[in-house]
Amino acid sequence: MIKAGIVGATGYAGAELVRILSGHEQVQIVFLGSRGYAGQKFSDVYGNLRGVEDGICEDDGDPAFIKDLSKKADVIFTATPQGVCATLLDDEVLSNTRIIDLSADFRIKDVAVYEKWYGIKHAAPQYVEEAVYGLCEINRADVANARIVANPGCYTTCSILTAYPLVKAGLIDPSTLIIDAKSGTSGAGRGARVANLFCEVNESVKPYGVTTHRHTPEIEEQLGYACGGDVVISFTPHLVPMDRGILATEYASLVREADGSLPTAERISAAYEEAYGDERFIRLLGDGGVPETRWVRDTNYTDIGFKIDLRTGRIVMMGALDNIVKGAAGQAVQNMNVMFGFEESMGL
Amino acid sequence: MIKAGIVGATGYAGAELVRILSGHEQVQIVFLGSRGYAGQKFSDVYGNLRGVEDGICEDDGDPAFIKDLSKKADVIFTATPQGVCATLLDDEVLSNTRIIDLSADFRIKDVAVYEKWYGIKHAAPQYVEEAVYGLCEINRADVANARIVANPGCYTTCSILTAYPLVKAGLIDPSTLIIDAKSGTSGAGRGARVANLFCEVNESVKPYGVTTHRHTPEIEEQLGYACGGDVVISFTPHLVPMDRGILATEYASLVREADGSLPTAERISAAYEEAYGDERFIRLLGDGGVPETRWVRDTNYTDIGFKIDLRTGRIVMMGALDNIVKGAAGQAVQNMNVMFGFEESMGL
Amino acid sequence: MIKAGIVGATGYAGAELVRILSGHEQVQIVFLGSRGYAGQKFSDVYGNLRGVEDGICEDDGDPAFIKDLSKKADVIFTATPQGVCATLLDDEVLSNTRIIDLSADFRIKDVAVYEKWYGIKHAAPQYVEEAVYGLCEINRADVANARIVANPGCYTTCSILTAYPLVKAGLIDPSTLIIDAKSGTSGAGRGARVANLFCEVNESVKPYGVTTHRHTPEIEEQLGYACGGDVVISFTPHLVPMDRGILATEYASLVREADGSLPTAERISAAYEEAYGDERFIRLLGDGGVPETRWVRDTNYTDIGFKIDLRTGRIVMMGALDNIVKGAAGQAVQNMNVMFGFEESMGL
Amino acid sequence: MIKAGIVGATGYAGAELVRILSGHEQVQIVFLGSRGYAGQKFSDVYGNLRGVEDGICEDDGDPAFIKDLSKKADVIFTATPQGVCATLLDDEVLSNTRIIDLSADFRIKDVAVYEKWYGIKHAAPQYVEEAVYGLCEINRADVANARIVANPGCYTTCSILTAYPLVKAGLIDPSTLIIDAKSGTSGAGRGARVANLFCEVNESVKPYGVTTHRHTPEIEEQLGYACGGDVVISFTPHLVPMDRGILATEYASLVREADGSLPTAERISAAYEEAYGDERFIRLLGDGGVPETRWVRDTNYTDIGFKIDLRTGRIVMMGALDNIVKGAAGQAVQNMNVMFGFEESMGL
Repeated sequence: MIKAGIVGATGYAGAELVRILSGHEQVQIVFLGSRGYAGQKFSDVYGNLRGVEDGICEDDGDPAFIKDLSKKADVIFTATPQGVCATLLDDEVLSNTRIIDLSADFRIKDVAVYEKWYGIKHAAPQYVEEAVYGLCEINRADVANARIVANPGCYTTCSILTAYPLVKAGLIDPSTLIIDAKSGTSGAGRGARVANLFCEVNESVKPYGVTTHRHTPEIEEQLGYACGGDVVISFTPHLVPMDRGILATEYASLVREADGSLPTAERISAAYEEAYGDERFIRLLGDGGVPETRWVRDTNYTDIGFKIDLRTGRIVMMGALDNIVKGAAGQAVQNMNVMFGFEESMGL
Repeated sequence: MIKAGIVGATGYAGAELVRILSGHEQVQIVFLGSRGYAGQKFSDVYGNLRGVEDGICEDDGDPAFIKDLSKKADVIFTATPQGVCATLLDDEVLSNTRIIDLSADFRIKDVAVYEKWYGIKHAAPQYVEEAVYGLCEINRADVANARIVANPGCYTTCSILTAYPLVKAGLIDPSTLIIDAKSGTSGAGRGARVANLFCEVNESVKPYGVTTHRHTPEIEEQLGYACGGDVVISFTPHLVPMDRGILATEYASLVREADGSLPTAERISAAYEEAYGDERFIRLLGDGGVPETRWVRDTNYTDIGFKIDLRTGRIVMMGALDNIVKGAAGQAVQNMNVMFGFEESMGL
Repeated sequence: MIKAGIVGATGYAGAELVRILSGHEQVQIVFLGSRGYAGQKFSDVYGNLRGVEDGICEDDGDPAFIKDLSKKADVIFTATPQGVCATLLDDEVLSNTRIIDLSADFRIKDVAVYEKWYGIKHAAPQYVEEAVYGLCEINRADVANARIVANPGCYTTCSILTAYPLVKAGLIDPSTLIIDAKSGTSGAGRGARVANLFCEVNESVKPYGVTTHRHTPEIEEQLGYACGGDVVISFTPHLVPMDRGILATEYASLVREADGSLPTAERISAAYEEAYGDERFIRLLGDGGVPETRWVRDTNYTDIGFKIDLRTGRIVMMGALDNIVKGAAGQAVQNMNVMFGFEESMGL
Repeated sequence: MIKAGIVGATGYAGAELVRILSGHEQVQIVFLGSRGYAGQKFSDVYGNLRGVEDGICEDDGDPAFIKDLSKKADVIFTATPQGVCATLLDDEVLSNTRIIDLSADFRIKDVAVYEKWYGIKHAAPQYVEEAVYGLCEINRADVANARIVANPGCYTTCSILTAYPLVKAGLIDPSTLIIDAKSGTSGAGRGARVANLFCEVNESVKPYGVTTHRHTPEIEEQLGYACGGDVVISFTPHLVPMDRGILATEYASLVREADGSLPTAERISAAYEEAYGDERFIRLLGDGGVPETRWVRDTNYTDIGFKIDLRTGRIVMMGALDNIVKGAAGQAVQNMNVMFGFEESMGL
């Protein structure tokens, strides 16, 4: 039994962490941090957990809380706005506890790239190098030993997992990769903004962050590791009138064989199987398989299918996950399970 | 005052035609065709028109009706499944009346291509040549004189209008064009199918018809006219949990200037302005402008914006329209207005 | 052609007023008031009106604007929070122009009741007496001559119109009246509040304001006029995950005839016909007729049906309208049309 | 470990049973019955269970299957249309296995009442008497020993649980009870009907079955047991554009104390506490507490609150549950747990 603290527990990702961890047989929640709801019962904010998690939210606005928390918690989840986690860390904290950061602070190895895309100065660049990018399907061994896990972004997890095996196997040309992603509204967070009101979102679909979305460099960095080179992609997110779910539709030109033929569907399937055949949380739908976000809702699964287009020489890769589970809280718990030697799917 | 007949009046597109035409000052509806609801009051099927259009639906299942109808109607709209319209036409009918076909029967000039993508034999190939593709923004003069107008598909209208000016001006490379489209559920029609039940569609997004959707050759043909060559594209439609609206996000590589530089946003805007500057139903949002389907809902507008991505050398073009209005019934009425010399926006 | 000013033009009701009036052949909009968007183009806030109403929003936060506006506008609509309209009025303003107030300030004749339910002091009680309750179906003659029209609330319009004929005819016992109402989310307004975020509203239904909703005394007052006595009712509003629409399901015990029998459906229908038979904007669905909010969406109609329950001796009355049209902006324009002698349905 | 068969496994309630039971540590699923999908993998119909329950659906259209199934299954769930379960039972089947029927066949003790409201002849009236109404909160002891459990309806469970304690305690007058209920669309089932298409349901709310809904006599019978007399109520269901959830808003006149005063909120709360204080799946929100369906989604909870209205002398009782879980599959598993001596919340 380990003790866990959750900073930012009343946002959508934080609340999902509370929900999952409150049913995890090896975890005791010892801290429910919140700015807006400090002093209130957590279950008065999230009525679904009434009778399940009735603890009182504690103020996590003043960073001073972290010292005490680091002493009593074996692991701290930070489900906070960009920049907050970096301000909380120092050597003492990291000698006491382990950190799973759901924000972007430690995802990007090049601090200059982080600072450019996020528009803020990094408060703890000295820990960037050691932080492990928490995509177990790719970095499982490193996650197990990490002090700091940078939990990947929601769009990023879906985008990377869908393309990774084909990039790695050299079956697609990364310079042609175009990712068109669609997300439910929970991805926009629980802040009170007019743009996210029901009547503004319902019955509409729109692109946003066109050519400038912050998840772009994160995707490029990880796919760059896969192919051993620089990757520059087009990434366009869209807002869809639903609560949860991300669908990534990804287009790339197939790399032709020496004889000029396109790789077969069998070849593509084999590459996916090799990468994910044993993965507990990836379901391969194969050639012509089409993922739908409803089938992954409330689960930690990523469903992946593909279709080759002989007319254009391109492949369409499609991935779906729940942005709050595999795209945030579920993946964080998966990382925690690996870090503490629990069964990877425990509680999920 | 002209007389109009509507075949297939109780489908979603047909019902929208009834709604628009019942408020059109120059049109009298003389025929409300339906298979499933023959003998019932139209307003018992579509309660919104109670007190507005309380006529009785007539059976349009047996093609014999067309002879009489062609004598009393100045124009006949066919909002019918693929293949039906072609079986209704002969020289006598066409000498009596004019046809606006909302199905695909007369959209594609190459009958073999039609038969391959739709999987049916064309029943009236002799009229394909004379049929005019009813996109007023491109073919206005021909529409005015047509006996048969092939009203474009919903995805097609949005996809073509968004890319057309840049293809025509040679600013993008058509062979790199990728169209990722998102549609509301009314596009799937009013047939009783499990896949379109509320609980199957709600809270989910999914691709469908990947690499095989029937609107693909229609888009390719029209864009081919624009650039004077063959165009082969990637087109992927998606189903979104909303009633109405299509958003097309289109990606293409910009054609570099002689000096290797990318075309500027001003250059792109100028091409759009040249093509659509005087158009009543196209609203140009310009550089960085992002269309949202809610702003075109229940209107005949197409909103178009774009964004240049210097990192990838691509442009992202974005278009939005209401699939039942500009994508079907509204465009049909726009065509009718042009055909009969009414103000093009009358009733819209 | 008259000139109209709209205070609070960027809220949901105000924006619908702009939309309707921009298509009204006898109205020119001369003022688009807004606090949050002053200085911006109206169509940058509401993209649907791009190319239709591109005027600049003017600051209506400082009441000083009203003097000038009253001189140039023939009618001023106030789509403002409770209490604002009352602070704008004085004899000079009222000698210059006519007011249609979409807030509650002048709906309730008993100022003490207003102050108790709304929790604010009335700033202009001297004008309460002359204000006319703007329900044309009941007060048409008075509306025509009013300087101040108190435009009814959305729940109120639906609740009153549904029960009024039976209360007036003495066919139901008002003391047994229970109104269970369901509303779309636009009724909550466009303020940035967590409770109205998409993810908070979607996939849920909840009651609110149970026994305390502010529309209760307004309903009671008007039904009291109908029966010539005090009426006290149960009223419970509910929030439904949709943009627009109100459905009121109303229960009351039928008053038995002298012989102990219940009134027949014919008797009930006759009472509705007598009250509304000539009304342009009320559609009677009759015995067993069931209104649905989708059929009144974007219209100024109220649909009303009923069903007698012989087992319980009660009648279930059901009414539906669009809360932003007949429940707010549409009704305001209907009132304006009556006040200025235009055809009552003009622009609607 | 027991063996369970599910008849009608591919409807919404059946599929939820599969989902819950596939995660139940004491249950092995041995039969997945379906008419429409016989021969297909269950997870090809419900993609969420891909990798979890990949068994093949077997044809349950011909009743002959029941003999074999009764020999190998310790319990059979029938999630079938009205009338089907009754045709499957005989003494041999009932000597082999135990039945949990999710349809209405054994819910109503008076066969004539059943036949009148459902319009079908009961095929096995001889088993009606012994069948136990499966509301554990009220009939737990009888459920434990039953051969046939009649799993309550979704509206019924919510309606009864919300009012039961106050009816039993004599605090409200049952003859004044009015139940206005709102349901998500999954309650309408997975049949391919136009009325349940996304575009017909979305953005609308409507009443249906007004004064005639089949759950009415079931509610009346159970509340009649509570007060020891006949109960006749008004019950109106409504369709709401969401997948899941039922909210029942219930109105009744409070029974005044001997001194003419109304019962206090404390008195009401005490009655609820006495009835449900120890219940695992009922959460009492108390005086002024307002349930929302989102907080019970995907859970077996029923949330109940109330508000006294001193002005009218009435109480408003409000209950919410998930119609597919506590209103169907979850409650069925709760009954199974009680019948087989498992912890009542196991798997839920």
